[in-house]
Amino acid sequence: MSMTPTTSALTAAPTYTLAIAVEFLGTHYRGWQRQKEVTGVQAVLESAISKVANETIEVVAAGRTDAGVHASNMIAHFVTTAYRPTNNWLRGVNSLLPDDIALRWIQPMPEDFHARFKAIARRYRYITLNQPQRPAILKNQVTHIYEPLDLPAMQQAAAYITGTHDFSSYRAAACQSNQPVRTVSHARLFQHGAFIVFDIQADGFLHHMVRNLMGTLHAIGKHELQPHDFLEILAKKDRTIAPPTASGDGLYFINAYYPHIYQDLLPEAPLTPVWINLPE
Amino acid sequence: MSMTPTTSALTAAPTYTLAIAVEFLGTHYRGWQRQKEVTGVQAVLESAISKVANETIEVVAAGRTDAGVHASNMIAHFVTTAYRPTNNWLRGVNSLLPDDIALRWIQPMPEDFHARFKAIARRYRYITLNQPQRPAILKNQVTHIYEPLDLPAMQQAAAYITGTHDFSSYRAAACQSNQPVRTVSHARLFQHGAFIVFDIQADGFLHHMVRNLMGTLHAIGKHELQPHDFLEILAKKDRTIAPPTASGDGLYFINAYYPHIYQDLLPEAPLTPVWINLPE
Repeated sequence: MSMTPTTSALTAAPTYTLAIAVEFLGTHYRGWQRQKEVTGVQAVLESAISKVANETIEVVAAGRTDAGVHASNMIAHFVTTAYRPTNNWLRGVNSLLPDDIALRWIQPMPEDFHARFKAIARRYRYITLNQPQRPAILKNQVTHIYEPLDLPAMQQAAAYITGTHDFSSYRAAACQSNQPVRTVSHARLFQHGAFIVFDIQADGFLHHMVRNLMGTLHAIGKHELQPHDFLEILAKKDRTIAPPTASGDGLYFINAYYPHIYQDLLPEAPLTPVWINLPE
Repeated sequence: MSMTPTTSALTAAPTYTLAIAVEFLGTHYRGWQRQKEVTGVQAVLESAISKVANETIEVVAAGRTDAGVHASNMIAHFVTTAYRPTNNWLRGVNSLLPDDIALRWIQPMPEDFHARFKAIARRYRYITLNQPQRPAILKNQVTHIYEPLDLPAMQQAAAYITGTHDFSSYRAAACQSNQPVRTVSHARLFQHGAFIVFDIQADGFLHHMVRNLMGTLHAIGKHELQPHDFLEILAKKDRTIAPPTASGDGLYFINAYYPHIYQDLLPEAPLTPVWINLPE
């Protein structure tokens, strides 16, 4: 757990493990992960960090996000042999990143910290704008539903989400997870003006899980389904019977959480922007 | 003041005067006004409304905005011989507009209503994000200042803005107004987390006036100037001695106000998005 540089058995150079918090507008990216022919946030970040480190850097994130999905506080880490003062890392990397990606902080960590494998929880918020007219200023930053949504009905269904369940009915066909059981510690819906915020935290999420849950909650809010239908869909463990996946526009990865031994070292960053930091 | 169609002496067709509230993200436009070779919000709006009206429509706005400046509630009007139910206008025009411009409402008005000449006040908000790291999600929607700003000093200067003054020191060289005197009914600064909101209302604004005032307030917040310097700059009536114009990214036209006889007819629309609807 030492935060002094670690000398690897294979190379002579000491290495540093650094945690970062990344904010990004996902609109112009094909998601977090590097893919052939398409730009992911990860590849853009690795390119900038590699330049500052003067060596090839691989970045590991707490979670993966789909195309168009945003993050106010994606926790990630990388290992490097380069020593830089924290402020030099932060200013150097931010100066090389495009204006829709920014580091919020960078923090030296014990060498065994791992943004993905040590994470004990991930948290997302999904912002629905519920009004007759579509948004213009927030066009890619919220999901617009023009039909009036029945919030109490949606809240009744959201209460069923909490707990340990097999989420096969809310899992994308392409999901690569070994098993479909996840433990949701909270799944809350609240309203602020025309915005409906869905705040969900779990030990982990299946591919498209938040967007699929949101799609069903939207259907319940429109009275296409009843709240108890959520439980029936969940019990059937069949994705094909659930409503469509909600758009990625309104989805924000807002944090990852770690055991205290790591969490106590991580800087706190207030949620950005304000509309995902609404009082409940 | 009749809201029934008016028969013009020159044409046989009755005409209708319609007020509209327009929300737009100004990032990809060269401002409100139609110009040669560059796209303005007005031209895009006129094109969509003309298609629904099936005749050439000219739109007149309460104010003009610069390149990159946004509006949550720009009040405008147009005159047409076409009769359409209100909802048909709204849905028809919104379906033809690009996703960064939207009508919030449309309202039949007395024939003598004029969005520009009948307006008695215009209101803007300017959003500064004051934190060390630049924004990513809100990259074009706020103005980022990384140096810590002294809000009480800025508030002291803002208090000097209220009242009737010759604003020549805060007027762009290109300003086409006949005279530089404006009456500011309020100029308030308040904070919400890392956001500093400047809310200003006046009978009218000179070209670049809000951005020029904001540039001086930023300089005062950074202690490059003292609050009383605002008064000295104002008294000199010389644009060249004032600090630079602040970026258009953080500026929002948020409303125009009319005499009661008209105002009482206009629908109210809550400010969008949430971060410009902050409690004070």
